[in-house]
Amino acid sequence: MSKIYFGEINKIEKVLSSIPHTKLFVLVDDETEKHCYPILKPYMKAHHLISVKNGELNKTLETCNFIWQELTSHEADRNALLINLGGGVITDMGGFCAATYKRGINFINIPTTLLAQVDASVGGKTGIDFNGYKNHIGIFAEPIAVIIDTIFHKTLENRQLASGFAEMLKHGLIADKLHWDILVKNGYKAIDIALIKHSVSIKENVVKADPNEKGLRKVLNFGHTIGHAIESFALANDISLLHGEAIGIGMIAETFISQEKGYLTKEQQREIEELLRGIYTIPNIKKVSYNQIMRLCKQDKKNQNGMINMSLLENPGQANFNIPVNDELLEKALNYTLSM
Amino acid sequence: MSKIYFGEINKIEKVLSSIPHTKLFVLVDDETEKHCYPILKPYMKAHHLISVKNGELNKTLETCNFIWQELTSHEADRNALLINLGGGVITDMGGFCAATYKRGINFINIPTTLLAQVDASVGGKTGIDFNGYKNHIGIFAEPIAVIIDTIFHKTLENRQLASGFAEMLKHGLIADKLHWDILVKNGYKAIDIALIKHSVSIKENVVKADPNEKGLRKVLNFGHTIGHAIESFALANDISLLHGEAIGIGMIAETFISQEKGYLTKEQQREIEELLRGIYTIPNIKKVSYNQIMRLCKQDKKNQNGMINMSLLENPGQANFNIPVNDELLEKALNYTLSM
Repeated sequence: MSKIYFGEINKIEKVLSSIPHTKLFVLVDDETEKHCYPILKPYMKAHHLISVKNGELNKTLETCNFIWQELTSHEADRNALLINLGGGVITDMGGFCAATYKRGINFINIPTTLLAQVDASVGGKTGIDFNGYKNHIGIFAEPIAVIIDTIFHKTLENRQLASGFAEMLKHGLIADKLHWDILVKNGYKAIDIALIKHSVSIKENVVKADPNEKGLRKVLNFGHTIGHAIESFALANDISLLHGEAIGIGMIAETFISQEKGYLTKEQQREIEELLRGIYTIPNIKKVSYNQIMRLCKQDKKNQNGMINMSLLENPGQANFNIPVNDELLEKALNYTLSM
Repeated sequence: MSKIYFGEINKIEKVLSSIPHTKLFVLVDDETEKHCYPILKPYMKAHHLISVKNGELNKTLETCNFIWQELTSHEADRNALLINLGGGVITDMGGFCAATYKRGINFINIPTTLLAQVDASVGGKTGIDFNGYKNHIGIFAEPIAVIIDTIFHKTLENRQLASGFAEMLKHGLIADKLHWDILVKNGYKAIDIALIKHSVSIKENVVKADPNEKGLRKVLNFGHTIGHAIESFALANDISLLHGEAIGIGMIAETFISQEKGYLTKEQQREIEELLRGIYTIPNIKKVSYNQIMRLCKQDKKNQNGMINMSLLENPGQANFNIPVNDELLEKALNYTLSM
């Protein structure tokens, strides 16, 4: 697993000196170049900056093409080192480019959004979107180090904090009821490095037990089958929706399914749902589009033979995986979640 | 390591039944579709055929794009299985596409050229060319099985047999003098499954000891620093040159360097050189282009900090790696090899 440093951006030089490398590259997007790179730069030795356009719409093969070209034209050899400075788009895509350049160079992730800090920082998932499908092309590759520092939170809007908060809430729901309770009490505006560290440790423990997502790791997918589909739909239809917002909505739908399957009581469902609806606004999606969202659910990487398999809650603080969900129940959940 | 089956194409169904999978895909190019697919098809159950254009010029991101699209539109899930039927271009590129589709599906390689059988079949190197650089983008990913059958040799021209023969000769030169002697005696037109099996076992032993090419595995690179550069040059200048032909010429040059460095006697060099020159024709490359070939040598993945590191012969049947070679000696070797 990667070595994770908490709250130590000022020690980047020490981290770098512990990793033998030739040339050094820093990948940013136009937003993190403006807001985050000035925080990192004073602590950095000579490097080449690679800047790409911001946002999920640019998490594509074309952008990878540009990154690979930059590495090539600046003569990155196999011992070059790439630092990915940004949100999940940058860490996912930069990780993919590094892991496939000359069959793999080392990379360091410095996630700058709360979402990337608690989610993309652990587990070695790299990838890009393809034909509208999220993370459709990618591999498992661990960064050699991850640096998580809340100093970057001052560059974030409330909406982005709430987005990251969704994955932290998920960690509580699937594995740690106490974590959920503390998060609910604190709210997303009062996230400190200790809470982040705890969320990361929950994810780490799950990933450690099943690095290649053969089984247990799938519990981390709670809220994601429907959440990803809604996110893909929003992306294709120009609806502004952050990843965590989509996951928040996906968790409402999949909590409903957990209750319909008989795992959760209506009481438990209501408590979770109320909290989530209080934070995440349901986008305006017409009923005629639900079929399209259902089709997108069927492209989920966790499915087999066209059957939808979900990770669901067995209890608040406990989850299970590979639970088949039929079209009827899926449609009912979409109606319940999006039409209320 | 992959399970390798020798001479058992008729047992493909048994191999397939030992690998749990959902949908089945077969990747071919227009040549192997015409000549090799009819040999395989009678033994195959239902599958979807993906056909791409033949040749190194199509070992690109665009072709990967097409393959990923085919997998996506035919709803390949994570348990789909891809069979790569073809030469090294198909097994390298198909392996890369499989290993990056939804973060990795299983693939089987059925190499149909002698070259792919003795070289690309072992070691898990996958990849594509990028901006004229060979295998510049790729990862290490092992096929779940490899099937090697000489039945496909009847689809090959002599030139293609000679090309594969170069890698077999290399296996002899770097690790097994007796293998070299037998190959020299037999000639490239008399290659049987036993000789292939022995060549593969030499490569397997080297790869097993160093799967990620941190050290020892680099000996397999003998002939390749200069060979790859000449191959890239030929590709960019429309000179017809097969991979093994380029490696044959690269081995002449690097055998010369081995002698200049004092490892080989002139006698040993002459014996190797005469054999290689008897098989591989030196392409017509003007002296003004040598600089360009030298620059291409510097992009070799094995280099560090712009310094060229070669794998050289210490003796016939024994090689070493990470030996620095300066520009002067490199130029001398190009002159010696290409101008004679």
